[in-house]
Amino acid sequence: MSAPFHFELLDCDGTARRGRLHTAHGTVETPLFMVVGTQAAVKGLTPDQLETVGVSMLLSNTYHLALRPGAELIAELGGLHRFMNWRRPILTDSGGFQVYSLAGNLKISDHAAVFRSHIDGSVLELTPERAVRIQEDLGADIAMCLDECPPHDADADALRRAVERTIHWADRCRAAHRRADQALFGIVQGGTDLELRGRCAEALTALDFPGYALGGFSVGETPQQMVAALGPSAALLPWHKPRYLMGVGRPSDIVRAVASGIDMFDCVLPTRNGRNAMAFTADGPVKIRNACHKRDAAPLESNCSCPTCRHYSRAYLHHLFLANEMLGPTLLSWHNVAFYSRLLAEIRRAIAEKRFDEFCRVSLARWGERI
Amino acid sequence: MSAPFHFELLDCDGTARRGRLHTAHGTVETPLFMVVGTQAAVKGLTPDQLETVGVSMLLSNTYHLALRPGAELIAELGGLHRFMNWRRPILTDSGGFQVYSLAGNLKISDHAAVFRSHIDGSVLELTPERAVRIQEDLGADIAMCLDECPPHDADADALRRAVERTIHWADRCRAAHRRADQALFGIVQGGTDLELRGRCAEALTALDFPGYALGGFSVGETPQQMVAALGPSAALLPWHKPRYLMGVGRPSDIVRAVASGIDMFDCVLPTRNGRNAMAFTADGPVKIRNACHKRDAAPLESNCSCPTCRHYSRAYLHHLFLANEMLGPTLLSWHNVAFYSRLLAEIRRAIAEKRFDEFCRVSLARWGERI
Repeated sequence: MSAPFHFELLDCDGTARRGRLHTAHGTVETPLFMVVGTQAAVKGLTPDQLETVGVSMLLSNTYHLALRPGAELIAELGGLHRFMNWRRPILTDSGGFQVYSLAGNLKISDHAAVFRSHIDGSVLELTPERAVRIQEDLGADIAMCLDECPPHDADADALRRAVERTIHWADRCRAAHRRADQALFGIVQGGTDLELRGRCAEALTALDFPGYALGGFSVGETPQQMVAALGPSAALLPWHKPRYLMGVGRPSDIVRAVASGIDMFDCVLPTRNGRNAMAFTADGPVKIRNACHKRDAAPLESNCSCPTCRHYSRAYLHHLFLANEMLGPTLLSWHNVAFYSRLLAEIRRAIAEKRFDEFCRVSLARWGERI
Repeated sequence: MSAPFHFELLDCDGTARRGRLHTAHGTVETPLFMVVGTQAAVKGLTPDQLETVGVSMLLSNTYHLALRPGAELIAELGGLHRFMNWRRPILTDSGGFQVYSLAGNLKISDHAAVFRSHIDGSVLELTPERAVRIQEDLGADIAMCLDECPPHDADADALRRAVERTIHWADRCRAAHRRADQALFGIVQGGTDLELRGRCAEALTALDFPGYALGGFSVGETPQQMVAALGPSAALLPWHKPRYLMGVGRPSDIVRAVASGIDMFDCVLPTRNGRNAMAFTADGPVKIRNACHKRDAAPLESNCSCPTCRHYSRAYLHHLFLANEMLGPTLLSWHNVAFYSRLLAEIRRAIAEKRFDEFCRVSLARWGERI
């Protein structure tokens, strides 16, 4: 019997790669986009609705779930999959990013990150061991090491200290990790400093994780800065392991990152923009509240086979948002998630057919920086 | 070929009746509960989700749709069924009730009701002819005559004037009505004054509508007052025509009203209570925010086959409401709508098997006035 988790590399087209992740909850194709279900729910969509439009994997947030309802409670109820009724793979982050970005970050030392809950103000401590334990309780198929993610404008010294701490914590996470049915990924930090990225990647590679993430992108740097650092950073990671670019991103970011050799993505954009009345289309963003859609009998995208596009006009969606109906955010999120599913399927097909370079060029020329 | 609309009476059990409404969008079984989709959308649920739990017919509100997006726009887009993607029958009300309860009611005369829009404050006029025209534009299977619905504490004179105006308007609605694929129902007013109800029913029966509604119930009178007036009021309506009790109600109200000979109902309770974290169960209401549900692995109802009960624990639903996730209102509304579907199916079966009296007694003993 093969290990519960392994990565199978199927095709390469230049630096772009196509493969399969085999997990305890089934196999998913890469490049892969994970829809975000922060609090054990994708906002406005049921698991059935997600499966209908081809979603194969979700991401859920350790920080949020640890605070509410608590990882022990979820374990007691049979784990995150059963709790939220999702049968396919799930990845949980380590909680670190939210501690720095969302909670009141009180103190960070080599021992732990101490923070104040954004829900009830209580003071809590997150150690690498605790981050692993929480994720084992949740029972995700992929767990992430606790890392330190400094702001993009951190000075060289702060960046270096964050990298050393990230390496130290990765070592402790690996030692603490027990679940054989769960893969633990390392996270490479170092911002846009390629020397630091190299140092971090080398140290983490020595720890032989089954997969690696690039952290510290999409944290305020410009798209140009990200693109410039991405290719060289991805190249530092082991070839035969999956590579995950955390928290990215727009369709154009994803296409560029796949060209740099990235396999996995997650982002709140399809659902957040859906709630905010913005739909992704191959012709650019559609702001459905705009008056031009008031009498428009056409769907969001004429060539989209998602339920929203098959059954509803732009005029109806426009009406739902003006009337403040919950169904508006649901139907637009549904389309956006379908748009991302279709995009990733097209990316995989283009790689398989050795025409990803062309796909990349045509897509970016069509979208510009609009989506 | 039979007329697009007709009512088929199948069984009686005492005063309770079981039948079928044949409409331009298919046949539905009575007694029947219509789920409310005020603004051309059932709050938080897609048409697919409604069909999954056995919803056979919707009600939509003429007042809201006439103001936004406008009946002409909906007609231009192919009518309400296509606009909201609902294939089965729809009933629209006349808009009168909302003019009195929701809008700024400026002036009511025999000619028209003049009111101020609750959306933009504009002054508008609703005549019987306009109410019919709007509903013909919307294209519902059943349209309602414009009536005057006085408050339950109106004095005898005001009540009498409202009844006379309702009769006068029904006559004008009938004369104005053109669509052969749409049934126009008359509305009997008269509050809890049986003499006035009789006068109104007699006048409207002479106009030979294909169905009749009782209006002016559930407008502030006590449940006792409603029950006392309901049986005699229903008995005034033609036996072979469908009888619709507007805006009612709780499960216990529905069971009592079926016993009085009512065939059709509508109410916002299943969806409104669902959004407000209250679930209907045969054991009484469940307030899912209560702390007692925090660790409860059981479903809302163990014998319910709705998707919410098949897939989710009370603990998960509790979590969704505490975390303010949109999925909470959706999943609870879904269960509540399924609860009403099941209740009406049980009512129909009990009538068919000539044991409705027993069903009624057992249900009311079990629920009391709790649901």
